[in-house]
Amino acid sequence: MSSPIYVAIIGVGLVGSEFISQLLSLSSRLASSSSSQPQIKLISLTSSTRTLYTGPESPFGLKTHGDGRWKQLLSSGTSENADLDVLTDRLTHLVGNGQGKVVLVDNTSSEDVAKRYPGWLKKGINVITPNKKAFSGEKELYDEIISSSSQLGGSNARALNESTVGAGLPVISTLRELLLTGDKVLKIEGVFSGTMSYIFNEFSTGKPDGPSFSSIVRVAREKGYTEPHPADDLNGYDVARKLTILSRTISTYSTSTSKLPPLQSFLSVRTASLIPPALEGISTGDEFLSRLPEYDDKFSEIRKKASEGGKVLRFVGIVDVETGEVRAGLEKYPIDHPFATSLGGSDNIVMFHTERYNPRPLIVQGAGAGAAVTAMGVLGDLLKLS
Amino acid sequence: MSSPIYVAIIGVGLVGSEFISQLLSLSSRLASSSSSQPQIKLISLTSSTRTLYTGPESPFGLKTHGDGRWKQLLSSGTSENADLDVLTDRLTHLVGNGQGKVVLVDNTSSEDVAKRYPGWLKKGINVITPNKKAFSGEKELYDEIISSSSQLGGSNARALNESTVGAGLPVISTLRELLLTGDKVLKIEGVFSGTMSYIFNEFSTGKPDGPSFSSIVRVAREKGYTEPHPADDLNGYDVARKLTILSRTISTYSTSTSKLPPLQSFLSVRTASLIPPALEGISTGDEFLSRLPEYDDKFSEIRKKASEGGKVLRFVGIVDVETGEVRAGLEKYPIDHPFATSLGGSDNIVMFHTERYNPRPLIVQGAGAGAAVTAMGVLGDLLKLS
Ligand SMILES: NC(=O)c1ccc[n+]([C@@H]2O[C@H](COP(=O)([O-])OP(=O)(O)OC[C@H]3O[C@@H](n4cnc5c(N)ncnc54)[C@H](OP(=O)(O)O)[C@@H]3O)[C@@H](O)[C@H]2O)c1
Ligand SMILES: NC(=O)c1ccc[n+]([C@@H]2O[C@H](COP(=O)([O-])OP(=O)(O)OC[C@H]3O[C@@H](n4cnc5c(N)ncnc54)[C@H](OP(=O)(O)O)[C@@H]3O)[C@@H](O)[C@H]2O)c1
Repeated sequence: MSSPIYVAIIGVGLVGSEFISQLLSLSSRLASSSSSQPQIKLISLTSSTRTLYTGPESPFGLKTHGDGRWKQLLSSGTSENADLDVLTDRLTHLVGNGQGKVVLVDNTSSEDVAKRYPGWLKKGINVITPNKKAFSGEKELYDEIISSSSQLGGSNARALNESTVGAGLPVISTLRELLLTGDKVLKIEGVFSGTMSYIFNEFSTGKPDGPSFSSIVRVAREKGYTEPHPADDLNGYDVARKLTILSRTISTYSTSTSKLPPLQSFLSVRTASLIPPALEGISTGDEFLSRLPEYDDKFSEIRKKASEGGKVLRFVGIVDVETGEVRAGLEKYPIDHPFATSLGGSDNIVMFHTERYNPRPLIVQGAGAGAAVTAMGVLGDLLKLS
Repeated sequence: MSSPIYVAIIGVGLVGSEFISQLLSLSSRLASSSSSQPQIKLISLTSSTRTLYTGPESPFGLKTHGDGRWKQLLSSGTSENADLDVLTDRLTHLVGNGQGKVVLVDNTSSEDVAKRYPGWLKKGINVITPNKKAFSGEKELYDEIISSSSQLGGSNARALNESTVGAGLPVISTLRELLLTGDKVLKIEGVFSGTMSYIFNEFSTGKPDGPSFSSIVRVAREKGYTEPHPADDLNGYDVARKLTILSRTISTYSTSTSKLPPLQSFLSVRTASLIPPALEGISTGDEFLSRLPEYDDKFSEIRKKASEGGKVLRFVGIVDVETGEVRAGLEKYPIDHPFATSLGGSDNIVMFHTERYNPRPLIVQGAGAGAAVTAMGVLGDLLKLS
């Protein structure tokens, strides 16, 4: 029997809750199986205000904490005020005991939590997260994460972030494997935002006309596919963040030198926002949506032009390793291109053009958002540690 | 620095040679990096007749053995007669030393080598292979492999076989992750044979006519896409073997009970061979090809019928977990289905329909054969061990 893996979770929202439920059933299965896989023990939950810490001896269990029973405990007197310094001390102590691996799972979208990764890694605490902030933010933070983790020998701890791109889809693991085994990535091209995917799958089908842009954005918002303020999707920053993560992954793991620029942050990605300049800075989603129809004609015109050339519009992200260009924006694709034919709903699709996968790329496609698939990607990273 | 991984390779053909070259560059990169990843040391090569064994102290190196220099050594007086019993003893001894993991990579298609997996696993030797024989052959052998490996606690050694389905594409790892994280697989459907993919991408494009079936098979053979005897592809057994592996993977890792039958071997898969009954048993590929045109009309007729319904023909494999059916054969797909639109060349495509990826499946697509991508899948498995 290998030594156990101790898991502390920060962030118990949509993804966090689903992750807890997947983790509790996995760890209960592992506990009752004869597998020589290490046991996984959940020992701590932290929301933005409260922490529930059980310690390694009496971890959370499916029977005692499943079906959301942890929620009551977290908001009850059993819990304590959230204090990440205290949590760090406890986990560091656990690492020091040398009785198993210690993992911090960050299910928040907090920048403050992200900034702590290097410190945790240096202390031997592994970090797993769907939070894009650290990997797509300031270059200094990213570099420090890499140099503090096992990748550069800074410690034995690893930082895993599969769910930051494509949620549960095998995007980052595939990219890393291509690179580590010596393939040369030429270009990555994809639809990386579920929201943008939905909007343009509905808006642009190859026909010259169709529903107005604003009406589709409105429906997308009603269905919960957009952020409360649709401009937070239409600015393209989510795609720019994912491209930053992919581009940095290539630079970190590539065996050959590439022309890719060392991105200072996701703001260094050439991003063609879809927000009409005059609507920039509008503070509420409602007001934004009420003004968006003023620009419907412009979007319809672009659609018509595309259709005349036998093309559809897609909001894509491209990491072009050969030219060194990283960009996000609206592009046209022939109606028989997989981005036109194969895509539906709010699917993501990622094409890896490499020296080995050439002339035809390796393609991964499927839902790229949603709590269940995102939590699955996080749990998949945890399994990689075990 | 973690303890090293010792690798012994059996089978140095197309995939084996490419694997050696990828491995030597990886291990030289690891040796010169500051990463705390374990060192990978190649210590033995075995062909069907000769073995070259260096021992753990002086492993193969890129400078000394790269660019195929190992080939001369393997056929020179430095090598010895191949004897898998001797090799097993040496590796068992190495496991006993407890100084690192020991891995046997089987790059043959030999049944004899496959039969040795349980013995190796029980001795603590990990097994990695693109060889489908063990995982798609007799149920008893498969069961023994699973019960001898860490999966059921039989030992600490693992048996990894990513490249047996889809070569370097992340098919088995994706399936395992879906299952281990508690997703429920409903159906897997795909084009699993590069040869069959090429043949039907050329033969059936949705139009009522086109090149004859036999002419396409002939060209495929000339391009080296088929086995020397095309009947070895047209019988569908390669697909049946891959379906057996997927079906067994589901049964082994699933958290819920499924209706899937315990396949006695790949012969238990309902496989609709494309070999005309009268051509069954023809001993040479040349004779087979000279007689195949007699059946062109029949194939053209099926193509015409399909096109009348707006469909194309694809030779697919299906593991239907809900009905418990596992089958390989020719099926019709609408011309706007990904199997019709997105597929090209000799690509594989795999759709995972699951509870989480629903109604739209998770899709993986790309080259599913070729030495470089197959070796990459094997090396990826090795990285998983480290
Ligand atoms: N949902 C998806 O489909 C998806 C897909 C891919 C990636 N992701 C990423 O996954 C992460 C979580 O997403 P989500 O949808 O679960 O978000 P969410 O529902 O808003 O949950 C975020 C959680 O983080 C907690 N939190 C925020 N700041 C914190 C802090 N400083 N310390 C401790 N806890 C803190 C919040 O606690 P309170 O409840 O106490 O405020 C909340 O429980 C995000 O980074 C997101 O980008 C999500
Ligand atoms: N090529 C592909 O695209 C691909 C894709 C997926 C999976 N695979 C699988 O990968 C494996 C290797 O394929 P390949 O294309 O490399 O085949 P290959 O070129 O025929 O090579 C097979 C090698 O195995 C050796 N061998 C056979 N029996 C042996 C034994 N009993 N002991 C030691 N060595 C033995 C042969 O040695 P000698 O040279 O001395 O005879 C030869 O070097 C097969 O299982 C295949 O199904 C291949």
